This record gives sequence, structure tokens and C-alpha cells, in this order.
Amino acid sequence: MRAINFNAGPAGLPLPALERARDELVEFGSSGMSIMEHSHRGKEYEGVHGEAVALLTELLGIPATHQVLFLQGGASLQFAMVPMNFLPKDGSADYTLNGTWSEKAFEEAKIVGSPRVAATTQDPDKRYTRTPKQSELQLDPKAAYVHITSNETIYGSQWHQFPDVGQVPLFADMSSDFLWRPFDVSRFALIYAGAQKNVGPSGVVVVIARKDLIAQGRKDGVPKILRYSTHAENNSLYNTPPTFGIYLMRNVLAWVKEIGGLKEIEARNRKKADLLYGALDRMNSYYRAPVEKESRSVMNVVFRLPSEALEDRFVQEAKKQRMVGLKGHRSAGGIRVSAYNAVSVEDIQALVGFMESFAKANG
Amino acid sequence: MRAINFNAGPAGLPLPALERARDELVEFGSSGMSIMEHSHRGKEYEGVHGEAVALLTELLGIPATHQVLFLQGGASLQFAMVPMNFLPKDGSADYTLNGTWSEKAFEEAKIVGSPRVAATTQDPDKRYTRTPKQSELQLDPKAAYVHITSNETIYGSQWHQFPDVGQVPLFADMSSDFLWRPFDVSRFALIYAGAQKNVGPSGVVVVIARKDLIAQGRKDGVPKILRYSTHAENNSLYNTPPTFGIYLMRNVLAWVKEIGGLKEIEARNRKKADLLYGALDRMNSYYRAPVEKESRSVMNVVFRLPSEALEDRFVQEAKKQRMVGLKGHRSAGGIRVSAYNAVSVEDIQALVGFMESFAKANG
Repeated sequence: MRAINFNAGPAGLPLPALERARDELVEFGSSGMSIMEHSHRGKEYEGVHGEAVALLTELLGIPATHQVLFLQGGASLQFAMVPMNFLPKDGSADYTLNGTWSEKAFEEAKIVGSPRVAATTQDPDKRYTRTPKQSELQLDPKAAYVHITSNETIYGSQWHQFPDVGQVPLFADMSSDFLWRPFDVSRFALIYAGAQKNVGPSGVVVVIARKDLIAQGRKDGVPKILRYSTHAENNSLYNTPPTFGIYLMRNVLAWVKEIGGLKEIEARNRKKADLLYGALDRMNSYYRAPVEKESRSVMNVVFRLPSEALEDRFVQEAKKQRMVGLKGHRSAGGIRVSAYNAVSVEDIQALVGFMESFAKANG
Repeated sequence: MRAINFNAGPAGLPLPALERARDELVEFGSSGMSIMEHSHRGKEYEGVHGEAVALLTELLGIPATHQVLFLQGGASLQFAMVPMNFLPKDGSADYTLNGTWSEKAFEEAKIVGSPRVAATTQDPDKRYTRTPKQSELQLDPKAAYVHITSNETIYGSQWHQFPDVGQVPLFADMSSDFLWRPFDVSRFALIYAGAQKNVGPSGVVVVIARKDLIAQGRKDGVPKILRYSTHAENNSLYNTPPTFGIYLMRNVLAWVKEIGGLKEIEARNRKKADLLYGALDRMNSYYRAPVEKESRSVMNVVFRLPSEALEDRFVQEAKKQRMVGLKGHRSAGGIRVSAYNAVSVEDIQALVGFMESFAKANG
């Protein structure tokens, strides 16, 4: 019996995408072998690769100014590749800090060069409960780029309006809210997203970047494998890509299109978030949602119970009802509901029902 | 009907490992979800990860002085990580060149520092038909390490006796012959191998390195994600690993153990190589094997036909008999038979039969 999976990533995947992978696992098409046994330079895999790029381009309306790359190493390697390619030795870049992941991106950039903090929402107790406001941004007009983390997976906050950064290229780590809704890709010079939340299994990171920016990336002292230009010039086939991960992403993207594309995905995600935050607000004498309302994440909903003991019991009792992945990140504590695209409205309704009876039984 | 897969990588995988993956794809154990939907910090995935490390340790007899890491980015990222971690700014490292892949490793090292060529077997026509001999090595006793490519996937040569490099740490790219037989891991300070030949799908690279070496890796100026020490301190779980790829590697390693371990694997591989090279030598008026006998690769068997037109016909007619992946690498031409662990003795017998009738019909 299928679990209700609220994992933060790797996370639940759409069942049709998994079933397709199962049915094709030993033999892809009538080729006599699994897609993962095919050469990455053969027509079967090239078809899958091209279809994944085409589906993503269609779903997001990616303009011809931008290129899609499928790389390895997750967002964590992007934290290093971004400054290695685009932070000049004698220049600066602006980082906005809204949680653990933007801190990590900033720390890697500090090893490579001299980035600045353009804004931080860190509390005196080292926690984060919101994203920065436009008025708080102290932007350097000479910055090589401005980096944001569009959704904070651990603390559960999200940029609902992307910042205006003038003429400076805007970069975003969208790992945990990529593909949750349509958005204007052209506002960004570079986007990256680990696949293992909304798009596929771990081991693939999607990069969408302006072609002119990629071409300007530093070459001096940067190994060839760590340059975006290397991967762009070779359509992500410079070295052997993670073919099965990209194949599975193809299955997930095909499912997104099949059910109605990103408008339908957004409608479902908004309904899920309304149900959950509605329940938290209604039962606010029992559950406490620490994130400021305007910054509440649609993807990762974080809340506390009256005590840690009750939080533990909540997680344990939810498990008995097949709901898993509800324990908050060890650095934030509490409960975290990751409600990525593969989580259905019905899953959230079941969770809200459980929250109501739990509060009643343990109030 | 299953193809006979001679792909150079990604390559064929043992059918039992694939069937196990198919059977478990939608639901792993009785967990209600796929292994790729599990958290990398949950007990189900941790069990798989630990089992993969344990199986590899057991099969290779990896000593306690060494640690196993599962990383991303393939051997190509290792080409950069190796010098970033171990080539001092004011020091040198020795590279032995026996083909395209060692050239690539050397080129990345040149971007990072000042490596030396300790030996090259490049012909005047830029090809390689053998590995260096011990007597040809011009080793620098002060080198930070000596790098070899144990098997040359494209040109089909292999180090059958690993070189004696004195007190200098020996590093090896074993991507295309890792796990083909038992060997003494303790002779190497660092080994890396892309999984997509003998061990699993693309997207995972296995690193086995001496713990004291890892600890000495450079930190200054090297992003945290690109340090071996970061991954070693976190048992390859610093960031989200490619969980499904590692799961599949677990299945392959379990199969290797099941059929009798590396001794049995070696016996099969030697039998396959004997059959193939025996056929080439017997029919040497038709087929020409360019690699010197002492350097012949057990994994990638390269040969030529009397003309390129016949080589094309050979590839096409083999396909009709379900044999795929026989076209040589575009830079080397000719025919290449990649006979990795998942290729059976019977597969090679079928190929030899085909070679005999092809030579007779097209002689």
C-alpha cells in the first residue's frame, strides 16, 4: 500500500512516472535493453534527453535566450560552480540570506572570491522566519550577480515576488520550488534546481542560464568540467550524463504536461497550501506556524506543537496512518510538511484530518 | 528479446540486478514507496548505502587504511578533483599517458597546477597501441602522486602489471576495468571509477582512497563540495547522493558476490578475452588487432577489418543478430567489443561465430 510521502527530498514522485519506469526498466521500447544500458550517444537515449529538454522548455516557456543543462552534483556543486564561473577575482557578488541553503551558497562563494551579504533575515537566535523585503536589499550596482534562494526548504519560507535587482544578473537556487507554478524565466540570468524535489530522483541538477552569460564564464584556472560553457557547447553530453535520472525526469515532466501543465500544478499547490495554512490558522491555539504570513512557503510548511514530546508523538502516530517524512529538519525542529508536486490535494486533506484529531486527542 | 550489449559505457548490466530493480521500483520492501523516494537520511536508504559499501569492501578486500566514497560527476570530475586536492601549487605530479582518457586527466591537472608527463606511448600518428613499460617511466621522486589510467577504453590497452612508483602515492583511473578481477587495493593511494562500465548506471563514481591521504587534501581555495575530506567525513552523505544509482550498484555488487565473487568474474573475463583474441589471431589475415599483445585489454577489444566499408557492414550485420555497441570510438575507428562483467562467455562465443562467418562471406 502506497505511503503518503511528505519527505523534503528525495521526495515522492508521481506514481505514473514510476510505473512507466518499472514497465520500461528491463527493456526500453523494443531495444532489448534498459535505457540505462544504452549509450548516451545512441539514438534511444538522445531521444529521451531531447524530450526532457523540450518538455521543460515547453512547460516553462523558456525563451531562446536561455539554455537548459542537466548536470551532476546537486545544488551543492552549483554553490561552487556559480562563483567559480561568474565571481571575478577582483569583483563582488550579492547574496541574500534567508536560511541554511543560502548560507551554504554564500560560504562556498567566500572560498572562491569576495561575495557580499545584500540582505539577511537571520534572527538573533540564528533562525529565519521570512525572506528579505525589497526595501531591505542593499544592492551593489557593480555586483557580478545577485543570488537568491527562492524557497527555504528547512525553515519554510519562500520569495513570492522575486526582487528587482536592476541591471545586475539575477541568479536563483530554485531547488525546492522549481516547477511549482509558471514564472517568467527571462527575469533570471541563471537558475539551478536539484531534481529531487519536484522533478525527479537525486543525482540530476537542472540549470537554465542565459546563453550570453554562459559564454562569459571564467576559463582561467577553472577546470573544463566545472565550466558551464563546456556543458552548454555539448548539450550536457560533454561527459556521460546520469542517463537514468534524466530519463525519470522525462517521465515526471511528461506527467506534468499530461495533467494540464504548470497552471494545473499551481492550482493544486495553492489549494494544498490553503488547506494546510488554513488548518494551522484555525487551530492556532495548538499549532504554531513560525514563518511570517507573506513569506510562507507553498512547498515546505513548517509548524510547532505545544512541546517536543507532542511533536514526536505526532510524527509517530502519523506514521501509523502511512504518513511519512513529517519530522522537521534537525536544525529547525518541529514538523515539516513537504508538499511537492507529487503530493495530492487528497494527501493534504488526509493530513489535515489527522491534525484535527491529534489536536483534539492531545490538547 | 534481450540484446547482446557490447556498449563501452553506459554498458549492459546483469539481468538479475535489473530485474530486482524492476520488482522493487514502485515499492521498496514494504515501505510503500520507491527507494528513490526515500530520504537519504532514512533507515531504508542508509541500509542500501551501507550494504553497497560493505559488498565492495568484501569483494575487493579493501583494507581499513582506505575509505570508499560514492560521488557524482563521473571520472571527468575526478580529473579535476584529484589535482585540486593533491597537486600542490608549488609542486608537481606525474602522469602516464596511454590514451585519450589519461590525456584528459592531464589537461585538467594542467589547469590546476604543473603536472609532468612521466611516460607516453603516443605514436607519431597520435594513436596509442600500448601502455608504458616500467623501464620507460621517468618518475620524479618528489611528485605528489603518479597517475595511471589502468585501462584505455578507446584504444583498448590495459596495465596488466601495475607500475612500481617507489614511495610516491599511486593514483589510478580504473573506470573501465574496475572489478574485473581481484587486486591489491593497498598498492594504491587513490582509485576512482565511473560506475557505468562494470558496476552500475552512469551518475555514480566510486572512489577508494587512503584515509591519511584524504585528510591531507588541500582546503585553501578549494570549495567544500570539491574536497574529498568533506565527503569522507560524511560517509558520502554531505549532500544528497544519487540514491537510485547507488541502489543499483548494490544490486550489481550483490550479483557479483552471488555468482562467486571476483575470482569467478576474473575466470569468466579471461575466458572471454581468450576466445576473442584467439579468434583475432587465428583470423589475422582478415582481422587486425592493433594493440601490442602484452597491453591487450581484457575489457575493450579493438580490431580493424580490411576496409572501413567492411567495418560498417560488420556493425550493421551484427545488429541484425541482436549484437549492439560494436562500432569503435569515433576517434579510433574500427570495431570495439566492450566485454564488461555483464557480458557472458556465451555472448562472446556468439560474436566469435559471427566473426567467422562474416570473414568467410566477406573475405
